[in-house]
Amino acid sequence: MDRLPDLPERWEGRGTPPTLFRRFEFSRYSETRAFLDALAALAEHSARHPQNINFGATYVNVTIEALGTGLGTEDYEFARAIDGLLTAGNLAHKD
Amino acid sequence: MDRLPDLPERWEGRGTPPTLFRRFEFSRYSETRAFLDALAALAEHSARHPQNINFGATYVNVTIEALGTGLGTEDYEFARAIDGLLTAGNLAHKD
Repeated sequence: MDRLPDLPERWEGRGTPPTLFRRFEFSRYSETRAFLDALAALAEHSARHPQNINFGATYVNVTIEALGTGLGTEDYEFARAIDGLLTAGNLAHKD
Repeated sequence: MDRLPDLPERWEGRGTPPTLFRRFEFSRYSETRAFLDALAALAEHSARHPQNINFGATYVNVTIEALGTGLGTEDYEFARAIDGLLTAGNLAHKD
């Protein structure tokens, strides 16, 4: 299997088909909600959606499926764009 | 274990701690999105949130945790209120 040298920090590469996974944790539901809303807007704007989003009051687990046969630059850029929502929204999250 | 005579149709009672689970399937992401938005508004309005929401482009899995030690009327009413969003939003869903 190819190495994944540029895997975005805190994202985990997983399985077959290949996916990227990250868990985001927040202090309050209002921040979880703001992140989910920003993520929905990003998805609509970029015409790309995570394969799965799993959330509760203070966490959001995001799974991105590889666009190609393996994880590549486009997938990592999408992951980083999602990370960027934390900064853009000034969302206090726990790493 | 107690019977659950009034379990809302299509909801499944599960496990310990007791939860209610239902999967909603939609034809298009836009309907999934409308349902998620309505569900967030309901949760904020009723100050009650599902324990977990797991969704992809065309499905939403909802898990409600019992308010008390077992599933009861309040839980079923919350489940029915969620069902009601389909009708209120005129959302075409697959049963």
